[in-house]
Amino acid sequence: MISIMKAAILAIGSELLGPVRLDTNSLRITEALERYGVELVAKSVIGDRREALVDELRRRLAEAEVVITTGGLGPTADDLTRVAVAEALDRRLWIDEELVERIRALFARFGREMPAVNRRQAEVIEGAEILDNRRGSAPGLRLEEGGSTLFLFPGVPRELEGMIEHHLEPWLAERAAAAGRVEGIERRVLKAACLAESALEERIAPAYGRFGREWIGVLASPGEIRIQTTAHGSADERRRRLDEMQEALRELAGDVVFADREEDTLESVVGELLKRAGRTLTTAESCTGGLVAERLTRVPGSSGYFLGGVVSYSNPMKVELLGVELAVLESRGAVSEEVARAMATGVRSRYRSDYGIAITGIAGPGGGSDEKPVGTVHLAIAGPGDGDVDHRRRWFPGDRERVRRHSAQLALDMLRRRLLVELGELAAPGPEG
Amino acid sequence: MISIMKAAILAIGSELLGPVRLDTNSLRITEALERYGVELVAKSVIGDRREALVDELRRRLAEAEVVITTGGLGPTADDLTRVAVAEALDRRLWIDEELVERIRALFARFGREMPAVNRRQAEVIEGAEILDNRRGSAPGLRLEEGGSTLFLFPGVPRELEGMIEHHLEPWLAERAAAAGRVEGIERRVLKAACLAESALEERIAPAYGRFGREWIGVLASPGEIRIQTTAHGSADERRRRLDEMQEALRELAGDVVFADREEDTLESVVGELLKRAGRTLTTAESCTGGLVAERLTRVPGSSGYFLGGVVSYSNPMKVELLGVELAVLESRGAVSEEVARAMATGVRSRYRSDYGIAITGIAGPGGGSDEKPVGTVHLAIAGPGDGDVDHRRRWFPGDRERVRRHSAQLALDMLRRRLLVELGELAAPGPEG
Repeated sequence: MISIMKAAILAIGSELLGPVRLDTNSLRITEALERYGVELVAKSVIGDRREALVDELRRRLAEAEVVITTGGLGPTADDLTRVAVAEALDRRLWIDEELVERIRALFARFGREMPAVNRRQAEVIEGAEILDNRRGSAPGLRLEEGGSTLFLFPGVPRELEGMIEHHLEPWLAERAAAAGRVEGIERRVLKAACLAESALEERIAPAYGRFGREWIGVLASPGEIRIQTTAHGSADERRRRLDEMQEALRELAGDVVFADREEDTLESVVGELLKRAGRTLTTAESCTGGLVAERLTRVPGSSGYFLGGVVSYSNPMKVELLGVELAVLESRGAVSEEVARAMATGVRSRYRSDYGIAITGIAGPGGGSDEKPVGTVHLAIAGPGDGDVDHRRRWFPGDRERVRRHSAQLALDMLRRRLLVELGELAAPGPEG
Repeated sequence: MISIMKAAILAIGSELLGPVRLDTNSLRITEALERYGVELVAKSVIGDRREALVDELRRRLAEAEVVITTGGLGPTADDLTRVAVAEALDRRLWIDEELVERIRALFARFGREMPAVNRRQAEVIEGAEILDNRRGSAPGLRLEEGGSTLFLFPGVPRELEGMIEHHLEPWLAERAAAAGRVEGIERRVLKAACLAESALEERIAPAYGRFGREWIGVLASPGEIRIQTTAHGSADERRRRLDEMQEALRELAGDVVFADREEDTLESVVGELLKRAGRTLTTAESCTGGLVAERLTRVPGSSGYFLGGVVSYSNPMKVELLGVELAVLESRGAVSEEVARAMATGVRSRYRSDYGIAITGIAGPGGGSDEKPVGTVHLAIAGPGDGDVDHRRRWFPGDRERVRRHSAQLALDMLRRRLLVELGELAAPGPEG
C-alpha cells in the first residue's frame, strides 16, 4: 500500500508502565492517521525519565515522518516532555511570557489564580509552533526536524480529542491534499456466531488467496468471531473493495454471519428479526442466570418484543413459574433435555409469547458428574407451532463465565436461525449436524 | 527504589497497530515483574515487519536485562517473531523434528491432525530453551544474549497467562532470591460503591498528606470506585505499609468501602453476607432486565442463597408473576414507588425468600417525561419483617447502559447495607440522606 507517510506514537508517563492503565489515546490518533493514509509503524510507552525519552524521540524521528507524543506536558517536575524534546533536537527552551499570560487568563476565566508552578506550561522550544488547547492549560507544540514533524499533545483524553480535531486532522488533510491522490485506510467488520475459529478460517480461506491475507483479520471471543476487512486507496476505491470483500466473505462464511456493521450485536439482530416477524419472546434461564434477558434488554426498544423472563435458579421456581413437573425434575435432573423443553414451552405458554428460550446447564465449578460434566448445557427454543421445540445439548469448555457466555450466545443464535427460517431467508435445517 | 533489573515488553502484531485493539497482555506481565522488583522501562508495539522487529529487539536488549515479546509465534507467514529474533541475535534457526512430534501429539489429543503449516511452530533458535505451552500449540522460547534474557511468549491471553505462571514467575523468583534483598512493588485495592468520585476524594484527602499523593490512586467507573494503594520495599516493608494505608483509607472512606481484595465484587460480598446471615434472595427487575440476577449468579455457589428472579419487562408479567395490582400500575405508572414496593414484597413472598430486590425505571433513550425523565429509577428491598421495605428514588445521568449499571449497583449496595445492619456490623441508618 502507498501510504503518504509513516507515523509513530509515543505515550509518555510512568503511570502507563504500571499493571493497571493502558495508553488508550493511541487508538483515537490511529483512527485519524489511517483516514488520511498515514501508516502507523510503532507505538511505545516510556516513563518519566529524561534520558529514555531523549533516546526514544531521536529513534522514532529517524524512522517516521510524523511522531506524536501524548502526556508529560503538565506543570509538575515529572512532566518532562518539553525538556526531553529540546534536548533530543538540541534546541533552546525558554518560558514565553506572552504564553504565561494566556495561561493566567485561562485560569482567570474559571475564577482561579494561576498557581506559580503552571509557568512551566509556557515553556516553548526554539522553532516550535504553539498549538492552542481549548480544553486545558497545557498547550501543544509542533516542530519540524530533518523532514519529520513532531506533535506534542496533552495526555488527558478530552484535551487530546480536541487537539486531534483542531490541530492534527487539519494538518493531515492539508498534507493529504498536497500529496494528490490520497490512499487512506478503511475497515469494516462481519460478525459470526457459534463456530470454531479454525472452522471459520477454513471456510474463508479462498478469500485469503483472492484478496490477500493481510487485508482480512479474524478475532475470536467465546461464541463470537469478528472478521475484519481492510482496504486502502481513495474513498471510492476503498468502498468498492470493501463491498467486494464483504460479499465474498459473507458467501464463504455462510449463515453463521449475523451482522456486517460494528454497531450490531447478536441481541440487536435478534430484536430486529422479532420485529420484522411480528413476534414476541420470553426467556427461562437457569445456569445463565439472566444473561440472555440482560443482553436482549440492552437494546433500546426491546420492550416492544421482549415480554420478560424468569431466572429459575432453584427447582421450586422451575415448578411454580414455568410449570415444569416435579417428577420430571426428579427423574431426569434439572439439567436434562426434558426439563429444557418443559421450561421453553412453559415460559412461552404461561406468559403468552410467540417464542420461548430456555437454558439449563452446569456452569461450574461445582455440580458436575461423570454423566453430566461441568459445561453440559441443554438449550431449547419453543415456537408458535404445536410441539414446535428445537433442542440442543452441548458441552462447553472453560470456566463458569465462558460456559455462561457460550450458552447465552448459542441460545440467541438458535432463535436467530429459527426466525430466519420463519421469514423465508434461510432453509429449514435438517437433523442437528 | 532499587530494582533488581530493568525490563522491556514488546508486543508483536500489525493488528495491535490499528484503531481497535490494545496490547492488554502487558498488564499481566507488568504485575509479575513488579512483584519481583523488576522495573519496566519501556513497552512497545511493532507490526509484522521483519526489519522493524529486528531493530526494536536489538535496541530493547541493549537497554533492558529482560525483554519479553508476545505474539507472532503462530504458524502463518506473518508470524515473524522467531525469524526476527534469529536475525537480531545473528543465530541459526531450524525446525526441530522432536518438537514437531510434540505439536502433532497435542493436536492428536484433541482428535485432530496437525495441519502442515504448524510445522513452523517447531522452529527453534540456536541456544534457545523451549518453554512448554500447556494451553496451545505455540511453544515459547528463552534465550540469553549479552547479559540479557529474552522470553518469546504467545499472544493469546490464556496461553500467555500459563507461560507467565509456569516460566516467567519461577525464573523471576529465582533471580530475586539470588539478588538477596529485593525491593518489589506491591499494590492493593479498596472498592467503594455508589459515591461520587469527588466526594470520595474529599474524604480520603488526609491520607494524601500522610502517605504521599503518588502512592494512592483513584479510578472511577459507574457506581464503583477503586482506591489503589502502592508500596515498595522488601516483602515485609510492603505488607506493613499497605496494611497501614488500607486501614487509614478504610476509616476515612467509611462504609462505602465494600471490599479490600481484587477478587471481591459487590455481588460476591452480598453473597457472603447472605450466607453469614443465613438468608435467601429473589429479584424482580424491570429496567435492569436481569442484570442484578446475572451478576449474583456469576458467583460460584450462588444457588445456595439466590432462589431466582423475574424480569418483568411488561405490565402483565408484573401482575401475574409478582402480584402487582393492575390498578396501581395504571394509576401510578410502572415506574413509581408503589410499584417498586409491590414488586419487592411480591417477589419475596411469592417465592418465599427472606429478601426481595426490585428495580423499575426508565433506562431510555425513549419513555421519559417531564415528571419522570429518562434516568428515573425506583428501587426497593423487602426484608423479613412485617412491612419491612426500604425504598429509594434516584435519577441517574447518562445513557441506557449507565442507568442500568448504576441501578443494579445501588440495588446490590442497598442490600449490602441492609445485611450489615442485620448482622450488627453497621448502625441502622436514619431517614435517607
